[in-house]
Amino acid sequence: MTTPTTEIIGILGGMGPAATADFYAKLVATTPGSSDQDHLRTVIWSDPTIPDRTEALLGDGPDPTPWLLDGSRVLRQAGATVIAIPCNTAHAFVPRIEEHVGLPIVHMIGEAARHLSTMSPRIHTAGLLATTGTVRAGLYQEWLDRFGIRLVLPEGASQDREVMTAIRAVKAGTGDDTTTALLVRAAQRLTEQGAQAVIAGCTEIPLGLPAEAVDVPVIDPALVLAQALVRRATTEGSTPQDE
Amino acid sequence: MTTPTTEIIGILGGMGPAATADFYAKLVATTPGSSDQDHLRTVIWSDPTIPDRTEALLGDGPDPTPWLLDGSRVLRQAGATVIAIPCNTAHAFVPRIEEHVGLPIVHMIGEAARHLSTMSPRIHTAGLLATTGTVRAGLYQEWLDRFGIRLVLPEGASQDREVMTAIRAVKAGTGDDTTTALLVRAAQRLTEQGAQAVIAGCTEIPLGLPAEAVDVPVIDPALVLAQALVRRATTEGSTPQDE
Repeated sequence: MTTPTTEIIGILGGMGPAATADFYAKLVATTPGSSDQDHLRTVIWSDPTIPDRTEALLGDGPDPTPWLLDGSRVLRQAGATVIAIPCNTAHAFVPRIEEHVGLPIVHMIGEAARHLSTMSPRIHTAGLLATTGTVRAGLYQEWLDRFGIRLVLPEGASQDREVMTAIRAVKAGTGDDTTTALLVRAAQRLTEQGAQAVIAGCTEIPLGLPAEAVDVPVIDPALVLAQALVRRATTEGSTPQDE
Repeated sequence: MTTPTTEIIGILGGMGPAATADFYAKLVATTPGSSDQDHLRTVIWSDPTIPDRTEALLGDGPDPTPWLLDGSRVLRQAGATVIAIPCNTAHAFVPRIEEHVGLPIVHMIGEAARHLSTMSPRIHTAGLLATTGTVRAGLYQEWLDRFGIRLVLPEGASQDREVMTAIRAVKAGTGDDTTTALLVRAAQRLTEQGAQAVIAGCTEIPLGLPAEAVDVPVIDPALVLAQALVRRATTEGSTPQDE
């Protein structure tokens, strides 16, 4: 870190809790520094009781927006200067909360799309492993379109039987070799559709899919978000767009 | 989890930040449940800028007490109903803060001592790998005395050159096989002094010392603390002593 920072990272977490712990570990590992005191002050609100985001998007469950607003308020009162949400699906609700939280939100999906657009060799087609909620909400579609990257998705059976089964297993703490095999197979199907990179577009997926098990680069949006937060904090409040 | 809980876990962290991430991961892994919504609401204040606890205890640095009080206030305002401090050395400052925080603190070192006293076969002698601050403050000595367990410590050179070197490497993110070898050697010296169990008494140590590398059981006080919090939350506010 070149200069001390006044930034306090607010993590709106709990979606799920294991992914929140993993995200904070990534933020710490990404921060340069050789002693505790070089690291970023961080406040984490982890409310796993927030209603399931995919169920809400599919019309099967309550709207998590009030929980997201409550959590944002806790983070702001605790002194957070920026908010990060390490849950891809929850980004479908960002337009409903961003006007009300009074703090900048570093957008994980926007950062992931920007990261893909800077990769070399150039990525023309990316594949997505994500919850059905994230897929249906078109979150990656919208952002990759802006960068001229084509998105390929698992066909319906692969989405339900491979991707969602694996995500639920990681959330339940029962992820194992079978879970990994499901995700590897789903990733392979995406590369067969032309994907030159695979987006691990649910924070549970990197916990079940080792990057080295896939033939093309696997992009972890949570890691990209952690890197964006560190860049932002260490350049003292400049926005990601300025860099 | 048998009943829904109103408990909100407050984690006073950042000492160091990697250990805080690891502690939260342990808390999540320890919590029974098969979906996000079964997990405990948690708020984490992670301020790595807090002055070094060992330096303060050795008279070489500022007193971290004001930072601990500030962090406790943030957690209370965020709705925490109980506080956990996943840093052994910081427990030297618990007597200075506990009257002021207005919330129960589940004492990691007390829980670790109690856990040791319940092990079978019975532990008569335990060894301690911890910071020089924790050792000098006599934190484990005091609690193990209450349970009639003898404590053995690394002699001075092993404490400085093995244990503290390894802890600093983990904090700096440069922990590697050499770090592990230092800790394994220090643990072996303790077993040669009669230790029937080794306490990984600094939250950085389990990150560098695989339990299977030591001939006797390695007790991870952070894991014991996580288990105590889950028991407390799932039995709805009963104190650990009641169980």
